[in-house]
Amino acid sequence: MKAVVYHGPRQVSVDEVPDARIEKPTDVLLRITSTNICGSDLHMYEGRTDFEPGSILGHENLGQVIEVGDAIEKVQVGDMVSAPFNVACGHCKNCESGLTNYWLRANKPGIAGAAYGFADMGPWPGGQAEFLRVPWGDFNCLRLPEGAADKQDDYVMLSDIFPTGWHAVEMSGLKPGETIAILGGGPVGQLAALSAITKGAAKVIVVDRHADRLRLAEQIGATTIDDSKTNPVEEIINQTGGLGADRGAECVGYQAHDPQGHEDNSMTLNELVESVRFTGGIGTVGIYVPSDPAAADDLAKQGRTRFEFGNFWFKGQYMGTGQCPVKRYNRQLRTLVAEEKVKPSWIVSHDLPLDQAPEAYKHFDAREEGWTKVVLHPSQAA
Amino acid sequence: MKAVVYHGPRQVSVDEVPDARIEKPTDVLLRITSTNICGSDLHMYEGRTDFEPGSILGHENLGQVIEVGDAIEKVQVGDMVSAPFNVACGHCKNCESGLTNYWLRANKPGIAGAAYGFADMGPWPGGQAEFLRVPWGDFNCLRLPEGAADKQDDYVMLSDIFPTGWHAVEMSGLKPGETIAILGGGPVGQLAALSAITKGAAKVIVVDRHADRLRLAEQIGATTIDDSKTNPVEEIINQTGGLGADRGAECVGYQAHDPQGHEDNSMTLNELVESVRFTGGIGTVGIYVPSDPAAADDLAKQGRTRFEFGNFWFKGQYMGTGQCPVKRYNRQLRTLVAEEKVKPSWIVSHDLPLDQAPEAYKHFDAREEGWTKVVLHPSQAA
Amino acid sequence: MKAVVYHGPRQVSVDEVPDARIEKPTDVLLRITSTNICGSDLHMYEGRTDFEPGSILGHENLGQVIEVGDAIEKVQVGDMVSAPFNVACGHCKNCESGLTNYWLRANKPGIAGAAYGFADMGPWPGGQAEFLRVPWGDFNCLRLPEGAADKQDDYVMLSDIFPTGWHAVEMSGLKPGETIAILGGGPVGQLAALSAITKGAAKVIVVDRHADRLRLAEQIGATTIDDSKTNPVEEIINQTGGLGADRGAECVGYQAHDPQGHEDNSMTLNELVESVRFTGGIGTVGIYVPSDPAAADDLAKQGRTRFEFGNFWFKGQYMGTGQCPVKRYNRQLRTLVAEEKVKPSWIVSHDLPLDQAPEAYKHFDAREEGWTKVVLHPSQAA
Amino acid sequence: MKAVVYHGPRQVSVDEVPDARIEKPTDVLLRITSTNICGSDLHMYEGRTDFEPGSILGHENLGQVIEVGDAIEKVQVGDMVSAPFNVACGHCKNCESGLTNYWLRANKPGIAGAAYGFADMGPWPGGQAEFLRVPWGDFNCLRLPEGAADKQDDYVMLSDIFPTGWHAVEMSGLKPGETIAILGGGPVGQLAALSAITKGAAKVIVVDRHADRLRLAEQIGATTIDDSKTNPVEEIINQTGGLGADRGAECVGYQAHDPQGHEDNSMTLNELVESVRFTGGIGTVGIYVPSDPAAADDLAKQGRTRFEFGNFWFKGQYMGTGQCPVKRYNRQLRTLVAEEKVKPSWIVSHDLPLDQAPEAYKHFDAREEGWTKVVLHPSQAA
Repeated sequence: MKAVVYHGPRQVSVDEVPDARIEKPTDVLLRITSTNICGSDLHMYEGRTDFEPGSILGHENLGQVIEVGDAIEKVQVGDMVSAPFNVACGHCKNCESGLTNYWLRANKPGIAGAAYGFADMGPWPGGQAEFLRVPWGDFNCLRLPEGAADKQDDYVMLSDIFPTGWHAVEMSGLKPGETIAILGGGPVGQLAALSAITKGAAKVIVVDRHADRLRLAEQIGATTIDDSKTNPVEEIINQTGGLGADRGAECVGYQAHDPQGHEDNSMTLNELVESVRFTGGIGTVGIYVPSDPAAADDLAKQGRTRFEFGNFWFKGQYMGTGQCPVKRYNRQLRTLVAEEKVKPSWIVSHDLPLDQAPEAYKHFDAREEGWTKVVLHPSQAA
Repeated sequence: MKAVVYHGPRQVSVDEVPDARIEKPTDVLLRITSTNICGSDLHMYEGRTDFEPGSILGHENLGQVIEVGDAIEKVQVGDMVSAPFNVACGHCKNCESGLTNYWLRANKPGIAGAAYGFADMGPWPGGQAEFLRVPWGDFNCLRLPEGAADKQDDYVMLSDIFPTGWHAVEMSGLKPGETIAILGGGPVGQLAALSAITKGAAKVIVVDRHADRLRLAEQIGATTIDDSKTNPVEEIINQTGGLGADRGAECVGYQAHDPQGHEDNSMTLNELVESVRFTGGIGTVGIYVPSDPAAADDLAKQGRTRFEFGNFWFKGQYMGTGQCPVKRYNRQLRTLVAEEKVKPSWIVSHDLPLDQAPEAYKHFDAREEGWTKVVLHPSQAA
Repeated sequence: MKAVVYHGPRQVSVDEVPDARIEKPTDVLLRITSTNICGSDLHMYEGRTDFEPGSILGHENLGQVIEVGDAIEKVQVGDMVSAPFNVACGHCKNCESGLTNYWLRANKPGIAGAAYGFADMGPWPGGQAEFLRVPWGDFNCLRLPEGAADKQDDYVMLSDIFPTGWHAVEMSGLKPGETIAILGGGPVGQLAALSAITKGAAKVIVVDRHADRLRLAEQIGATTIDDSKTNPVEEIINQTGGLGADRGAECVGYQAHDPQGHEDNSMTLNELVESVRFTGGIGTVGIYVPSDPAAADDLAKQGRTRFEFGNFWFKGQYMGTGQCPVKRYNRQLRTLVAEEKVKPSWIVSHDLPLDQAPEAYKHFDAREEGWTKVVLHPSQAA
Repeated sequence: MKAVVYHGPRQVSVDEVPDARIEKPTDVLLRITSTNICGSDLHMYEGRTDFEPGSILGHENLGQVIEVGDAIEKVQVGDMVSAPFNVACGHCKNCESGLTNYWLRANKPGIAGAAYGFADMGPWPGGQAEFLRVPWGDFNCLRLPEGAADKQDDYVMLSDIFPTGWHAVEMSGLKPGETIAILGGGPVGQLAALSAITKGAAKVIVVDRHADRLRLAEQIGATTIDDSKTNPVEEIINQTGGLGADRGAECVGYQAHDPQGHEDNSMTLNELVESVRFTGGIGTVGIYVPSDPAAADDLAKQGRTRFEFGNFWFKGQYMGTGQCPVKRYNRQLRTLVAEEKVKPSWIVSHDLPLDQAPEAYKHFDAREEGWTKVVLHPSQAA
């Protein structure tokens, strides 16, 4: 089959690789019809992780079931399904508690959590390919309603960024009528904004510096701040009667940098501490890594940050972190899409065939104007 | 009246000062019968805060009502009451949400929260004195049951350290049957251990390096680790089947130091991140400050820490911080004391008259063997 | 001053009564500018309670502060404020836990909760009058933002029916993406529908039999069922894929009756049990009474219902009940109004001067077409 | 194999039946080493359900794995495991939300939930037998730690009554320091008492009328009320300062009767409403049925109760109901047993071989003095 293979920093190509196939009785095999390039793919693309050359990328996958293992009972051939980016077994202590983001027997001892096509997240090939093997398929496939094939650009967001944006808001503790500041207007930040609006936020403030992203956020009713033109902390404080935002969401991650490009992995964290009110909550879904050998800074190399912990504590804030447990949210978000209460595809800028993945990576990584979200379509639904 | 007055680093004396008195119709005036020296008093005592010379210390106060303002309806003269260390108005946005730890109109604009006799926590004199004015007395006094005068060493813990220890456990998200690691076996750490046990923890691990404290923790059924003899992270991992503790509680604060005395304000935080499991929670009640001019380290001076944020995020942990909202817990803890389900006075090593406060500060600050908790008794209940 | 006084079943008149005035230092005195007639006023109007003749009606009050007691610090003369219908002291065990709906020292021993102008809810005169005394005014007044005088028909809903509708939804446990069935399309049912939509419900189903109410619900995007034309249980089951609604809200109360007028106080309760799914939640804010001497039915006279408890239990449902703790929600709802995320005044059919209250009661009680919600305006804001 | 088979009201015998065996790749086969007779078995034993003659009883099962299907990965031959009484698939909407008590494809359309050997709970044979087939075995088996074979009388409680008692307390909303009234001192009521104590209740009040049960409750520190000698509502009110208990637990069910034996399916429910305070919570785990043809009373035949709903609503109480989702609690309770924080076997009065099941049913059903809990042991662990 064809698949997007990583060969080293900023080198990906569409290669012919062995077909994905059923390996265990609990497996489900998908024909991938839609698969996104994610902002977190860029950490791997840029060589800022230990993602192994030869690996297949792609963890935001939607497809059609073409074969099931002998133990599969729920999912049926022909079903259109969304596959959460987390690989999870469904019966360990964490999975049973809804912590499918931290499946306990994922890969190496002492490491919890797994994902398709992801650095440090186990041996699971990605879905930027014609076919994908989904282990524990009855647990890891979300069936989509009739007509799903015609709304793939909405449903494809259920595998990662919509739940991830939702998780950021959930961890922040947002209640209806409150204000949330979202740092980062990439796809996850946009979906965090949509999530906050859907959950009844009174005001949603998105901070970014790219005109196309700021426009997208405004289209759904968010207020925006261009941090290349103004100090975002001061502006958020001003917009919230001097008290600070009730909640904050970090949607950038460890490669945060100022408008001039200087990286500082504590930048957005400290901005949030400063711009969220006393007792407020922060949800951090931007990726941070335990070690970052390519960082310019010695502390950052060790996965440490110059975090304003004194201020964080003094203000009595709390913070939730980590990858999203997609299954905690994907059913309810599916229903919101099906009932047309939300339309997450508004961020999609490009629908492309698999062959154009290398070009798409290049443009998206360069943060080129207009490349806000790319959906690849390796196959058609039957 | 007599009161313990701060005159500069490691200088306190019992001075004659003007009597506390009713100033507003919502005030209540207490004769103080029991008032603790708190570990956080030592930050001020050592000159590591901007606590103003001439101020009265003391925020863990118990006393008898001797006069009430015209608007007081609940509290009556003669009542024995516990006064939460937080000063709170009862009708601002935060107080109404139960966030009495961050009363909004406490002192300076932009700063939330207030306390008696505390740096940066407003102009409220402390209670290491014969009398104390309690503002918004109907809101800020917890009435104690009959016989309270005879159990003062238990009830006096309700104003701060018992709720604060409880809050650490609560913020950690502990559920019955789980394991919690508590860093710091001072009075708050001890009460966190008692709290965890009361809430049904399966295993409570207290880390400290002082024999008297380790003994106290063992007396109530906790497991202990002496971090001057063994690596506490490795030991916690070992004691939890390699997974790490379910929850962690930070009960040390910014003056954390290794057994050799080298301060590192990220030490206990990083130890917790390393020894708590993936998806676990951490409650941090040890004090951290937005700026610490007397710190040896440049980052610490700015209130920053070398926090292992990458690891924290990778493990999907969450953290709650800040001062305890005492009123959220003090009623239920009062009942546990009254029904003799808990006996928090087991940590008290010294019951002393007010005059001996300067000596007590000296011994307690020096962390002398056997000086685990001091209760001062300025007056007797009538 | 002028006030709406109850004189017996279906007899109210606007009488001259002694002025409301400051009686205690914690009182606030309001000039009432907007005050609603509530569906629950009709229980009293019809003589189905033991509301005492001579009492002033009115518990949904909005006004301007014209005088404050000596102990008042937050509220100032000139403020436009919303007064929650619950009278609450702010410092008893229940008030401190946010249970202002069940203030403990309200009226008689053994009875918790108090309200203005309400049967069995203490001696507090109602606000369908020129002036209203608000006890514990700093606790019981919610200040409104600038411009409030021009949006009174929105803000007046904050004192009762918007929070009450919200409470029904909250107690039902609704999560975004879920479906809720609301029984009763009176003002509270309408606001429950608005609340569910604001909180991200995927589908909101309102059951009623009056065309004007069904239209109102449809205006905000709800689906409606006319229970005079179809079986609402079957219809809800049909609209939810055979599973039943995720959540239910009871917004009718003990005078529930079928389209032919036969009263059955278990009618809506049993319909909810039947139409909500296994494990679903139900919030009941329609009023039920411990005894109802005027009921036709012997069980109902004793406050009992023929509740299908076996089915309720078999389906593992849960239910929350009772009057709404308005202060738990009114700040966040105020912000949603101020930010124009919601416009609760869409249900208002009549804005009338106080003098027309008797006529308004007659039409509203008769459930006349077009009389969906009446706002009385005794005075103008200065 | 040998199994306890139901043949009609009060007729059970140990019969030779076909061996349980692996039928699907996700099955696990157990040799049953311990299996309890449950109070709910008596509803079936007495013929008060539509349990089919010829069915095998037994839903509280503990055993050793002797064979696994091809798709099983976690559980291994030789493991000692506890099997929750609920049969659940692990991948439907309810299972994924932790509602394993209401597995959606259990048996008939429109009915959620399944159990071994239980009326209306699907076609799953019970475990009062030598062998038991556990479907979806990786999901439905809880592995026990080393040494489990020697503590079977403790661990066998994990399959039903300990989690069920815990669930009652959980649904009641109990917080540490509160008081709970438990109606019914049978095995579930006893375990509810143990649960409340473990969770930090200040006072636990158990109501029953059998001396052996009252003694058991007192052994673990509960207060008891003999409702054959005193009015339990008045006594609970007296013991709680006139306010009522904070929480209540119903552990009797639809066959509730007064000391003279008159059945009234609303008896314990109304007693709880009357004896729990305003705003208190009630957890109901005693079984209620949608229809009860053998009831003496017409309303009861229809599954209805004369519930004091007016009082329930007036007091603003809430109630959770239904069968327990065992998997939500059994891991944490396993740890509490393993760490010897609790010893649920204190209620066991009889350890018997399978052959004596018919005798045991007779004595237990007759509520004979000293027959508080029977554990059957069909086999030994290898």
